[in-house]
Amino acid sequence: MSTPSRRAPKKIYFGPPPGVAPGEWFSGHAELYAANVHRFSGQGISGSDREGVDSIVASGGYAADRDEGDVVIYTAMGGDPDKQRHITKDQELTGRNAGLVLNEREGLPIRFVRGLDIRSGKARGGYQYAGLYLVEEHWSCRTERGHLMWQFRLVRDEGEVVADDVAVEADDDMTDLERATARYITAQRRVRNTRASRKVKSIYGNVCQICRVPVVVDAGGVPYSEGAHIQALGEPHRGPDVVSNILCLCPNCHVRFDNGALLITDDLKVVDGFTHELIGNLNVRYNQHRIGIDFLRQHRSRWADRSQGL
Amino acid sequence: MSTPSRRAPKKIYFGPPPGVAPGEWFSGHAELYAANVHRFSGQGISGSDREGVDSIVASGGYAADRDEGDVVIYTAMGGDPDKQRHITKDQELTGRNAGLVLNEREGLPIRFVRGLDIRSGKARGGYQYAGLYLVEEHWSCRTERGHLMWQFRLVRDEGEVVADDVAVEADDDMTDLERATARYITAQRRVRNTRASRKVKSIYGNVCQICRVPVVVDAGGVPYSEGAHIQALGEPHRGPDVVSNILCLCPNCHVRFDNGALLITDDLKVVDGFTHELIGNLNVRYNQHRIGIDFLRQHRSRWADRSQGL
Repeated sequence: MSTPSRRAPKKIYFGPPPGVAPGEWFSGHAELYAANVHRFSGQGISGSDREGVDSIVASGGYAADRDEGDVVIYTAMGGDPDKQRHITKDQELTGRNAGLVLNEREGLPIRFVRGLDIRSGKARGGYQYAGLYLVEEHWSCRTERGHLMWQFRLVRDEGEVVADDVAVEADDDMTDLERATARYITAQRRVRNTRASRKVKSIYGNVCQICRVPVVVDAGGVPYSEGAHIQALGEPHRGPDVVSNILCLCPNCHVRFDNGALLITDDLKVVDGFTHELIGNLNVRYNQHRIGIDFLRQHRSRWADRSQGL
Repeated sequence: MSTPSRRAPKKIYFGPPPGVAPGEWFSGHAELYAANVHRFSGQGISGSDREGVDSIVASGGYAADRDEGDVVIYTAMGGDPDKQRHITKDQELTGRNAGLVLNEREGLPIRFVRGLDIRSGKARGGYQYAGLYLVEEHWSCRTERGHLMWQFRLVRDEGEVVADDVAVEADDDMTDLERATARYITAQRRVRNTRASRKVKSIYGNVCQICRVPVVVDAGGVPYSEGAHIQALGEPHRGPDVVSNILCLCPNCHVRFDNGALLITDDLKVVDGFTHELIGNLNVRYNQHRIGIDFLRQHRSRWADRSQGL
């Protein structure tokens, strides 16, 4: 078997590996390379900051990683992990870590491969192609020793394919693999709806609590809004689906808030996440909507890289 | 078997009928009522303009209806259909038709029931519970005879459930059915990503072609944007996934455009869909992005109720 360094790099592509079904087993990196599952990159993560990440081979590199099957909590590269796989210095959102953020923004899918029977960072049981995963969310936090750590939630999503008889942008000199990729559709963003979020949105008549600009979508003047969970739903945050954990936001402010570009202080001031500049007061109808300060703190702690001093 | 009018109305609820699996067969309306699949409403559609629609029993009422299994094109109520099931007057977006728009805005799921072996508007083969469907889109068009018709695309989506150990807003006096509904999560909005939409977004550096306000989401100042298909992807529009059919928009303008609250004229002026007031010129980098006028016309024709004279 050839070593990774002898394999020529292949061009990046996003989407399912042709002819490989989720669950298929591979003995090693050479076979994953041959089947177009994982292009050579010399590491478990393939891609770049400008292109995004097209595949990951997970082999338990970090203590904070969690694999729950269809949901994976994946720790960023770097931070010099020790033998117990704990990071020993701050991680940075650069290189392929920044690539994973691009995956989230653009809905780029990752071919996810699981190392089996991992001992001392080696997959003794070979590898299994698990399917396509989307980056649903990323965040930063401080480890117990105080180092900055970035993490990503990957969620399985096989996407869909444009119907064969619908025109798709294609060049004459595309390979079969590129043509297949061009027909491939993923979810770039998914807004969730719950009973509690409907309640909060109705309190504000669907007008954003941050910018207060109604996104009018029908003749009657009714705006469109989204319920934003402050402490996020889902792993690993597991925020509750209750009125005190939800804001009524317009889609633009929702995207900003979910990405930590907007943070909210304990006294309900909205600030720019990066400059800490005051943007304004959160609009709150106190008699109907009590906001949980602990949820705001959890949201800020999810952006440990920028929330210090707030 | 009792007639529908003798059954007491039940309280509206959204989500899966407890104990009923997709595919289950029912002999008639009384059984659907007893199993909490379709509350009495005297018609095939249950709900209201303020609450949304919780269930539909389809029995081929309109010639323009299409049932492709997981995707259903559903024609609005009203318009006095003739014996050939063609409407004979304009339909209105009121009552339960407006309720379906609320379903779309809020991500409220519909319990969808199929009449089997339909002849002369009667389901001779009984009924099958097909599962939960979301309203993905609605539009208006002119029939061949010139009447205004409203349609909805329903897409099957079983949703997900909040984990049992995560807190959910609940009152002590809720019924079991209401408690189950409270744990139920759906997709309120889904943004699709394709190779062509990434190309268009990169042309504009992720800055909205309509409002030109960058939705900055990271420390580097990179904005978040979405690719908006002008002639929509999917049934029945089947717009192509090509650069000339895609705009780079911020989420707020995207929601407005998809709902016909913003329309674009042949000479690339953005106007308010309801008042036809000029909002501004679409920002276009002509050397890299040629926009298809036919796609803009198709988009306007999808809002036949408001696009006349543009």
